[in-house]
Amino acid sequence: MNPLDLDEFKRQGYMMIDSIIDYYRNVANFPVLSQVQPGYLRKMLPSSAPSNPEPFETILKDVKDHIVPGITHWQSPNYFAYFPSSSSVAGFMGEMLSTGFGVVGFNWISSPAATELESIVMDWLGQALKLPERFLFSTNVGGGGVLLGTTCEAILCTLVAARDEKLCRIGKENLKKLIVYGSDQTHSALQKAAHIAGIHPENLRVIKTKKSSSFALSPDSLRSAIMKDVENALVPCFLCATVGTTATAAVDPVGPLCDVAKDYGIWVHVDAAYAGGALICPEFRHFLDGVEGASSFSFNAHKWFFTNLTTCCLWVKESSCLTNSLSTNPQFLRNKASDSNQVIDYKDWQIALSRKFHSLKLWFVLRSYGLDNLRNFLRNHIEMAKTFENLVKQDKRFEVFVPRYFSLVCFRVSPLAIANKKPFCNGTNEEEDHYYGFGGKIINDDKERLVNEVNRKLLDSINGSGKVFMTHGMVEGAFVIRCAVGATLTEEQHVIMAWKVVQEQANSLLSVVSKA
Amino acid sequence: MNPLDLDEFKRQGYMMIDSIIDYYRNVANFPVLSQVQPGYLRKMLPSSAPSNPEPFETILKDVKDHIVPGITHWQSPNYFAYFPSSSSVAGFMGEMLSTGFGVVGFNWISSPAATELESIVMDWLGQALKLPERFLFSTNVGGGGVLLGTTCEAILCTLVAARDEKLCRIGKENLKKLIVYGSDQTHSALQKAAHIAGIHPENLRVIKTKKSSSFALSPDSLRSAIMKDVENALVPCFLCATVGTTATAAVDPVGPLCDVAKDYGIWVHVDAAYAGGALICPEFRHFLDGVEGASSFSFNAHKWFFTNLTTCCLWVKESSCLTNSLSTNPQFLRNKASDSNQVIDYKDWQIALSRKFHSLKLWFVLRSYGLDNLRNFLRNHIEMAKTFENLVKQDKRFEVFVPRYFSLVCFRVSPLAIANKKPFCNGTNEEEDHYYGFGGKIINDDKERLVNEVNRKLLDSINGSGKVFMTHGMVEGAFVIRCAVGATLTEEQHVIMAWKVVQEQANSLLSVVSKA
Repeated sequence: MNPLDLDEFKRQGYMMIDSIIDYYRNVANFPVLSQVQPGYLRKMLPSSAPSNPEPFETILKDVKDHIVPGITHWQSPNYFAYFPSSSSVAGFMGEMLSTGFGVVGFNWISSPAATELESIVMDWLGQALKLPERFLFSTNVGGGGVLLGTTCEAILCTLVAARDEKLCRIGKENLKKLIVYGSDQTHSALQKAAHIAGIHPENLRVIKTKKSSSFALSPDSLRSAIMKDVENALVPCFLCATVGTTATAAVDPVGPLCDVAKDYGIWVHVDAAYAGGALICPEFRHFLDGVEGASSFSFNAHKWFFTNLTTCCLWVKESSCLTNSLSTNPQFLRNKASDSNQVIDYKDWQIALSRKFHSLKLWFVLRSYGLDNLRNFLRNHIEMAKTFENLVKQDKRFEVFVPRYFSLVCFRVSPLAIANKKPFCNGTNEEEDHYYGFGGKIINDDKERLVNEVNRKLLDSINGSGKVFMTHGMVEGAFVIRCAVGATLTEEQHVIMAWKVVQEQANSLLSVVSKA
Repeated sequence: MNPLDLDEFKRQGYMMIDSIIDYYRNVANFPVLSQVQPGYLRKMLPSSAPSNPEPFETILKDVKDHIVPGITHWQSPNYFAYFPSSSSVAGFMGEMLSTGFGVVGFNWISSPAATELESIVMDWLGQALKLPERFLFSTNVGGGGVLLGTTCEAILCTLVAARDEKLCRIGKENLKKLIVYGSDQTHSALQKAAHIAGIHPENLRVIKTKKSSSFALSPDSLRSAIMKDVENALVPCFLCATVGTTATAAVDPVGPLCDVAKDYGIWVHVDAAYAGGALICPEFRHFLDGVEGASSFSFNAHKWFFTNLTTCCLWVKESSCLTNSLSTNPQFLRNKASDSNQVIDYKDWQIALSRKFHSLKLWFVLRSYGLDNLRNFLRNHIEMAKTFENLVKQDKRFEVFVPRYFSLVCFRVSPLAIANKKPFCNGTNEEEDHYYGFGGKIINDDKERLVNEVNRKLLDSINGSGKVFMTHGMVEGAFVIRCAVGATLTEEQHVIMAWKVVQEQANSLLSVVSKA
């Protein structure tokens, strides 16, 4: 038996292509949110690995029978949860080729094409985003881009770089003085990265945002927080600003925040994980105005840019800050090219040593569709989100909770539609209260509590239908339902159907509330 | 234009399968180490992304014309460098399916099958490795396994867990007292992880090993180092022991090291990145004896276990240590299943939030080949390494530098073959001296310096031939050539040919030395 038999590769490869196509053709028919119970799979599979080979057909059958029912279908056209995980033919082909080459591109010599294509593609995409030239390799002033797996890694790498740059000036014994800033809308990746990097939780400033300012981080609030820290002899180090937050796709004012940060020598990282791709459209580029004052910028091409998982694009203004922190130079990797300083060794731009030939899929995506089509794909999603938003607005029982900038609509059953009704459960359902954060600390008002409860039950029944999958956000004490358009297969009919599902579930739910 | 057009998916998918097969068919004919010069690719590609789509055929042609020449061919049967990046049909198919599903398995609910299959497969593999039951989920005592990208991540995650467990007891202000232990053969991932985690470089103990004990870390040396630290009121925290080191595949004595560590409450991580897979063979399992005293164990299935990049298998004895350190519980991810504590949320076992459906490829590998065949594949590589080793031994000009345990042969031109010759360059080639670490500090003996120089030149000429690719290690001042057998396409004929290339290059090189 030969584990790389090429006849078998062809036979299985074609079958797998056909199986995946078959999956995509049928994916709209599956319950979007998997309906299995915890532990379902262990009952269906053997308790140990087989000693002898099993036919490919048997494995594929098990995939269909046992795995697919346990999948929450991110590729379904009826998927509107979290943010999309957008796929494309081009992204898939690029991933296949990267897997086929199987090169480990830790340094230039280990596969020059892997390093060089990555630098080129990051410049292409940086230009398309109209990033300041200092973030590009082509201008040769120290900036450039790298492909990481996730935004979590991008934040950890840049935070460690910022930490070390600061400690280099004030002495490494002062780690406990470093302060990291974000808002209450910043992704939890910041908290986790700070923890991993040895920064105490109490040194993370979570600055409050308000609905009245669309949950954007206020530069004045930032300055106040910084000044207080400086008065206490603490050292401001890092700010994570967000373009398109997780809960509501809020946009922090990048330029004004960078202006504040500049006065205190703070590293500003701009996290546009979800919305970043849309910034290649001129009509959205203004959200990035002032990014020349930031030290780094990242977005996930695997979220909403048709590049299959996982592809986080990170650009930095001074790559030496990253490499000063993350370089290792073990003997077994030494080579003339690296020592000549003429090449990039991407191992020094990331946490791990090993890395795949990541850039192929992004290169395939950019070339297969071209920038004009990519802009149109994104605009099409945004138009569909507008359609959904308008449907919400036409139903007086609902409200759109925050302004919609991109393809995410945050909505809820309006408090006006639930006037003077009692809660369903008289507050006795402590378990559910706990898991949705209704612990009384945030929400001490019965009315607000009831509104949240109605919306939570509505979301549960929407997802329980299996017809669509949406998720929730909790902002300023309000439970909002998020409808994120962006799955590649989604068309207008799916968005309209999604709204019908919401209405149907609301009809029966609100009639119960009315009877209460 | 539809980015997920299924007819196009089929057309391009079949073409890509054929292209990759074509690549594998021809890969033996390419220079293994890419011969391009830095910056070669930027000259060949446009300076910006296209506005309009380009045909798939054009992109594939560019791959052939511009990318393939810049590839260092890790899949070539003539690849013997670093460690292998082993592919298989099954691994490839699993990766395709994972890419096709495109699910983001951060928590159970986001795709129950992704979490549950991972737990099951990690138990399967843990059983095959005869890991102590406490490392398995099935025994339900807190242990279990997770798939990460790389060993670097495994070390960082476990180090952070160990750090936090210790700080929880002694107070978080004592970070600067924590000490991390490894040997001078431990992978640089430990140094990098410690740095990221905020541990000062001077708190990393790099314990010397010796050729006379095959570069294994001595438990006595470890105990001495620890005792000295304890005397200085420092706090021993973490030890990284290695089964199959990077330079020479040395094996640290796991059991005795764990015994020492136990006395001081040290977290022992066993890194078997390369050799771990071979431990499913009963004849090698003894290298892991005593692992029940360790806290965690990892190996890279993408190195030498036929599972395509990237797949690092990590098992921990107390998963709560990982999750205590790495959990976040942001509102947008809250759900009943997670709050019930009946499910695993793998986001809390790793650095990043997002993750692919990693376990499919390992599941495909285990089932497609079965454990018996997998053992035979590995034994076959080891037999080929023995063949190479015997060829080295038969040539009196060479020596096998360290005992061979697995599929890595470390050899060099013997000092006896270069008796009383002068260096080539009279020591004037400072640049080359620098990059190979010939800085005079380690090697102050002219003879040793000459031996190293001959071997370095030999390796350069071997790789310059393009016929094979090997790399070097530097141990106890000696430059050794490493021949790592393990590329899936390698057969005995390739190993024999590799040795002929070494001999040919040695013939001409040593005749020059003789004339000097």
